[in-house]
Amino acid sequence: MSKSRILIQLDTDPQASVFDAVVAIDAGAERLLQYANIKPEQVRDLIHGAMYTRGPADLKNTAIFVGGSNVAHGEQVFRNAVDTMFEPFKVSVMIDCNGSNSTAAAAVISASRHLELEGSTALVLAATGPVGQRVAKILANEKCTVYLSSRSLERSEECVAQLVAQGVPQNRLIAISSADQTWTDKAIRESHMVFACGAAGVRLMTAEQLEQAGQLKVAIDLNAVPPLGIDGIGLTDKGSSRGGRIEYGALGVGGLKMKIHKASVASLFESNAKTIDCQEMMSIGRDILALEKPLS
Amino acid sequence: MSKSRILIQLDTDPQASVFDAVVAIDAGAERLLQYANIKPEQVRDLIHGAMYTRGPADLKNTAIFVGGSNVAHGEQVFRNAVDTMFEPFKVSVMIDCNGSNSTAAAAVISASRHLELEGSTALVLAATGPVGQRVAKILANEKCTVYLSSRSLERSEECVAQLVAQGVPQNRLIAISSADQTWTDKAIRESHMVFACGAAGVRLMTAEQLEQAGQLKVAIDLNAVPPLGIDGIGLTDKGSSRGGRIEYGALGVGGLKMKIHKASVASLFESNAKTIDCQEMMSIGRDILALEKPLS
Amino acid sequence: MSKSRILIQLDTDPQASVFDAVVAIDAGAERLLQYANIKPEQVRDLIHGAMYTRGPADLKNTAIFVGGSNVAHGEQVFRNAVDTMFEPFKVSVMIDCNGSNSTAAAAVISASRHLELEGSTALVLAATGPVGQRVAKILANEKCTVYLSSRSLERSEECVAQLVAQGVPQNRLIAISSADQTWTDKAIRESHMVFACGAAGVRLMTAEQLEQAGQLKVAIDLNAVPPLGIDGIGLTDKGSSRGGRIEYGALGVGGLKMKIHKASVASLFESNAKTIDCQEMMSIGRDILALEKPLS
Repeated sequence: MSKSRILIQLDTDPQASVFDAVVAIDAGAERLLQYANIKPEQVRDLIHGAMYTRGPADLKNTAIFVGGSNVAHGEQVFRNAVDTMFEPFKVSVMIDCNGSNSTAAAAVISASRHLELEGSTALVLAATGPVGQRVAKILANEKCTVYLSSRSLERSEECVAQLVAQGVPQNRLIAISSADQTWTDKAIRESHMVFACGAAGVRLMTAEQLEQAGQLKVAIDLNAVPPLGIDGIGLTDKGSSRGGRIEYGALGVGGLKMKIHKASVASLFESNAKTIDCQEMMSIGRDILALEKPLS
Repeated sequence: MSKSRILIQLDTDPQASVFDAVVAIDAGAERLLQYANIKPEQVRDLIHGAMYTRGPADLKNTAIFVGGSNVAHGEQVFRNAVDTMFEPFKVSVMIDCNGSNSTAAAAVISASRHLELEGSTALVLAATGPVGQRVAKILANEKCTVYLSSRSLERSEECVAQLVAQGVPQNRLIAISSADQTWTDKAIRESHMVFACGAAGVRLMTAEQLEQAGQLKVAIDLNAVPPLGIDGIGLTDKGSSRGGRIEYGALGVGGLKMKIHKASVASLFESNAKTIDCQEMMSIGRDILALEKPLS
Repeated sequence: MSKSRILIQLDTDPQASVFDAVVAIDAGAERLLQYANIKPEQVRDLIHGAMYTRGPADLKNTAIFVGGSNVAHGEQVFRNAVDTMFEPFKVSVMIDCNGSNSTAAAAVISASRHLELEGSTALVLAATGPVGQRVAKILANEKCTVYLSSRSLERSEECVAQLVAQGVPQNRLIAISSADQTWTDKAIRESHMVFACGAAGVRLMTAEQLEQAGQLKVAIDLNAVPPLGIDGIGLTDKGSSRGGRIEYGALGVGGLKMKIHKASVASLFESNAKTIDCQEMMSIGRDILALEKPLS
């Protein structure tokens, strides 16, 4: 008899996410073990419990989900989990703290429906946050030129350095400050895509700036709390045509984000050695898109 | 394929109630997510996770149970949960902190087997506690005249004010102090029902007082730890006839309480917008009684 | 319809053991309620929730597992659980903190494959730790003469006193100090079995000592981190023949330990009044052995 599919939810928040739990159940996790308030130093023992309880042939039915609102803490937990394991005692691991990975993948996939990513130029607003950084990473790995904008040039440059350390090609990343008019204007003029990844209620791009954006084909705003990050975009826009551009609001991206999240959890149980972060979610998102296209 | 029935147990105690968990499982919750040490300010995010993970048509398969030994904390959690939701993203919510709602409903239902509630008079002893307050509320809403007795008149009056604020008709509620002999005697003489809702081991009604109670048809004692609250009642009394009265002890009410608790959890999954507290449990308890009567 | 099998995992650590959880699921616990950071004073209420939610006929489908890395804390939790219950409201309870009970049982069962326990002499190294103490207890109850060795004679004697208080025959227990050469030599010369139960990386028996052990038939080392406790034993030794002795390393005992752990959890649901500690695991381990022998 095959073993039941167990998902171990490691959450760094005081209460484990209900959102992640329900999605996990609906994605096919037959048993869910919820762990809240996870500290990086607790990870090793917990992962050992996942590694040494089933034979290697059954380990694909045990998997780890790392979540929580603090992305930095979650990444440490994720790294500790991955570093603890070795073949043949590996179990699959996924990280989607605060939905940042699935949101970033869904945003880029949405853009990819309307233009060829390779060779395009993108402007990522509020690029130093969890979602912005992942959008930039995915785009650069897709061979886009990416402007990473934040209020502080120093933080944009730090963000670029972090991405380069993760293996992203440096020559595709350009750090700019939103306070620097010259560079901001240049980025706006050159970009085919713009992604607003800022905090709730912060306006990142004005109507005037949109008008200057002569090359702009797709504008995506991932903020769900008005005022939205890009002037004129509606929360539920999903491929809406406006001023010659295709526009997406946060809820317009949300449906695909949910599908990617769910498919990612399901894919954890396909083998015992998956490591799923934003990059793998791009591939999962593309598969979802490929299945949907014939229907539309 | 229909979604599995998920119950989210929000408990304000350091450890989530095992009692509530087992009843939830036996009531048909296919998946149970246990949350302990819940603070009111954590509720919104958790409820969002329940609201936004399934389509509106599936939300009846997600529900919330609020429990824990501190009734005031639980009510705040319950209110926050209800206030967070809006159509069409509602999920059903139930509150039964420390069993106070199901116990109160079971006590009144038990009494209703032996007299007509409407127009009757009731004396609720220790009426300011969680169970007493709910017994009084249900009775007044059933058109009884209710004496709410506690050691302090001030606390009885506060309790009446709270019930009135909840919409209970003021003219059916009479606050008295158990230290006031005149009013206590009057309440005892007039009452058709008496409910002892006090703490463990506190005697609330003596044999002498029982003798003065010329109208008394039903006496119910909800305290399970000797000495019981009403002189002469046995813990397992369940409709026992004694001195012309029908008497119930805590365990005699307990069977119906458990059925109401379980049926309440089951009913959460019938639609996505149920709000189940003591008042709804009265209706659920009546349905249970209606099904049982033909059998006896 | 029969009730689902619920296992309540009471763990004294800040995070409940993943190891114990996965084994519980694979052993047939249909629903697992995980409780972490359990304090002895919280046990009563939790156990009441197990006792009073199902009728006596169904209580065999509810059971308790006590675990965690601190064996003393776990034993207090276990005792409180057992002391809270009374017939007919009992549920089965098992304790296996840090795997100490199942490891001790597996070690003694392994030795029993190669010699007759009754009448044999055993040397238990690091006998005052959780596993060592249990190995000594089981052996003495199997009518072996047992040398309990630790660095401090005082601690060895305390350990003997504790075992005697638990009903182990005093005349089978001999406390010695590993610093006392005369007694250590005598124990080594007389012993048919030696069990090394020390902490990770501590050498407890040298090659020279092994040579003096003229009666030695079985040497078992339960430490999994090199250097191992007994010179020359390999981590994966499982009945290996070396120098006229049969040898077992920690992983060589681990397979049987896991089977005992799993079978113990499964047996909890056979009736409502099981109390499973190292002694009961011996009997469970013997049953496993009896089933395996015909196959080999």
